[in-house]
Amino acid sequence: MAVNSPIPVAADLFPVAGIELGYAEAGVRKPNRKDVLVMRLAAGATVAGVFTQNRFCAAPVQICKTHLAAGAPIRALLVNTGNANAGTGEQGLADAQETCQALADLMGCTPAQILPFSTGVILEPLPVARITAGLPAAIDNLKADNWFNAAEAIMTTDTQPKAGSRTVTIAGQQITLTGISKGAGMIKPNMATMLGYLAFDAKVAQPVLDHLVKKTADHSFNCISIDGDTSTNDSFILIATGAADLEISSIESPDYAALEAAVIELAQFLAQSIIRDGEGATKFMTITVEEGKSIKECRKVAYSIAHSPLVKTAFFASDPNLGRILAAIGYAGVHDLDVSKLNLYLDDVWVAKDGGRNPDYQEADGQRVMKQSEITVRVKLGRGKVASTVWTCDLSHDYVSINADYRS
Amino acid sequence: MAVNSPIPVAADLFPVAGIELGYAEAGVRKPNRKDVLVMRLAAGATVAGVFTQNRFCAAPVQICKTHLAAGAPIRALLVNTGNANAGTGEQGLADAQETCQALADLMGCTPAQILPFSTGVILEPLPVARITAGLPAAIDNLKADNWFNAAEAIMTTDTQPKAGSRTVTIAGQQITLTGISKGAGMIKPNMATMLGYLAFDAKVAQPVLDHLVKKTADHSFNCISIDGDTSTNDSFILIATGAADLEISSIESPDYAALEAAVIELAQFLAQSIIRDGEGATKFMTITVEEGKSIKECRKVAYSIAHSPLVKTAFFASDPNLGRILAAIGYAGVHDLDVSKLNLYLDDVWVAKDGGRNPDYQEADGQRVMKQSEITVRVKLGRGKVASTVWTCDLSHDYVSINADYRS
Repeated sequence: MAVNSPIPVAADLFPVAGIELGYAEAGVRKPNRKDVLVMRLAAGATVAGVFTQNRFCAAPVQICKTHLAAGAPIRALLVNTGNANAGTGEQGLADAQETCQALADLMGCTPAQILPFSTGVILEPLPVARITAGLPAAIDNLKADNWFNAAEAIMTTDTQPKAGSRTVTIAGQQITLTGISKGAGMIKPNMATMLGYLAFDAKVAQPVLDHLVKKTADHSFNCISIDGDTSTNDSFILIATGAADLEISSIESPDYAALEAAVIELAQFLAQSIIRDGEGATKFMTITVEEGKSIKECRKVAYSIAHSPLVKTAFFASDPNLGRILAAIGYAGVHDLDVSKLNLYLDDVWVAKDGGRNPDYQEADGQRVMKQSEITVRVKLGRGKVASTVWTCDLSHDYVSINADYRS
Repeated sequence: MAVNSPIPVAADLFPVAGIELGYAEAGVRKPNRKDVLVMRLAAGATVAGVFTQNRFCAAPVQICKTHLAAGAPIRALLVNTGNANAGTGEQGLADAQETCQALADLMGCTPAQILPFSTGVILEPLPVARITAGLPAAIDNLKADNWFNAAEAIMTTDTQPKAGSRTVTIAGQQITLTGISKGAGMIKPNMATMLGYLAFDAKVAQPVLDHLVKKTADHSFNCISIDGDTSTNDSFILIATGAADLEISSIESPDYAALEAAVIELAQFLAQSIIRDGEGATKFMTITVEEGKSIKECRKVAYSIAHSPLVKTAFFASDPNLGRILAAIGYAGVHDLDVSKLNLYLDDVWVAKDGGRNPDYQEADGQRVMKQSEITVRVKLGRGKVASTVWTCDLSHDYVSINADYRS
């Protein structure tokens, strides 16, 4: 179903020494589906996260932040689907704490060493009893090579699991990275995406990991949008298990640069996997805005294009109705934009030149590109040297169907 | 087709002394449809307008601004559909000027006394010859009671004409107001809507009319959104023909207040008519945000709800998935919002209380309201005394169909 995104093969997902994963079918919302995931970390792991900027951030997000700030070593992550535990007030916080306590009791640690995550329907009470009842089963099947099942266990409207593995050799040491993500709608992350977890076995000092998680999010999950809706539960977590014989204690070291490159590459893959599986998506679009004065204005323009329902439906229709892109650029909020310096390309086709139609542009060329399943929109603002890229998908009938049917 | 919006009856649209309207079937884009409109003003009329803030504002918009600023008495307005003359660069400006010259020649005035307007496809050259060839026919059928035909002549994807008339007695004098509007997609006006024209026969000094047009737009066309796309051609024009025996020279006079109330009421009707006929609309929603610190933040929250594809599809499905509204409030960009003070109502149903689900809320009550064709969403921010209202519609399969088919 997803655009040019084959279902991952379980055998291609490498275990990361120092982390085990277990799941349960707890019936959180529906029976007979994996809906609870436990990720157990060996001693010595460091963990860092970035979370939604939505003011209605969910109870588990608030607790994750508190637990990470408290500084006790994190021993496990607990994820449930089927209920977001958002818009649930004080009771929601107590409910999330109760699930942490239950898992801590089973693992022999403190609740502050657990990070809770939820995704699903907003404004409904968390079914705590069903989740905690599922925990023993999840712990029973904890395994290092359970990444595929873990990717399935965090799915909601996703049509397929999203996961990837990489290995990279740094300072003569082979480092393994494996990550999973989920999300298909309510996707316009602001600091992170719906849910993303990426683990590797290098040992990384906490301040370095804190830096890396923010930088990675800014170059991956913060560059995607399906519908412009920022979720209440977005979370992206980086886990350094420290099981490998590589220690990175400074962002100035060449080893850090190599690790950062590998982490960002995998995170971009996971983020793009979300777009490829965007609700109703039939096309994958890369929106690159160049020659801006600042990253901020480039992103404004890129998101204005990525969020325009008119642009997205034109892509769905393979209709080179490209004036809609110019309109979206024009209302992006760059108030001193001189449109006479603007150029627009669709892949290799030069569509708009100096703010007007390129005299050499042929509709047949635009039509050819629009029929592709992967399209790059390139905007040159002609006012600076900065560039930024955003990934998005089209808006189809199926998006409406999925979201008109999701809950009822 | 439009939501609770009967087609206007021609006999109910009152002539406004001092203005005549004529149309032509000029074949701008398609044959056999009214696509050129001329509005001829008698001497003594004053005219004021507000226009799109889109940086890619169309050539006719640029020329309207120039002609209004030049100050020569406006003698006619010229509107074409089928082509927006936007994204057309220098040639677009020359083309729009050429249509003004042609009409000026026929009317015995200067081109600077003509205001041109275009709506339709962006990024394609204006077919000037077809438009100017249609002008004699439009002038031949100039009539004071041609408002219904005028409303039809400015339609694009509109399913029905939008027009209304009012009379109001001010200082013992009966004043007649008649207006028309068009627009069904690419509707999130920023200073004005796609096209709106409102004429009345009071005599109004230019500075007063300039004030009135801005205030009216801010309370009507600037409060609507269908898809969040701000057009390149938005224009709202107020015409005071001065034919009646009422002269208003100050915004401090009680007569001004009475006129303003009548103008705003009719403009709101015309703006709401656009939403009721929004592309694919099946529901009309009023989003009222109260208890804010500023109009700006109230509007931010209201538009965040109005633009959320997830909220709009939930309304289409009559699904009280109201957590989506909380999420949209949360990402509206009010960074210091204390969600624990927030209350949410759906018509008379109290859904969220102090940031969480109202314990007394019954899903059946939410369901009852969601099934209505007219729904009010009321948000109380609990942080100030200011309120603002935005009108919008739902997002349906037909929106996607219409915009995937519009051009091809």
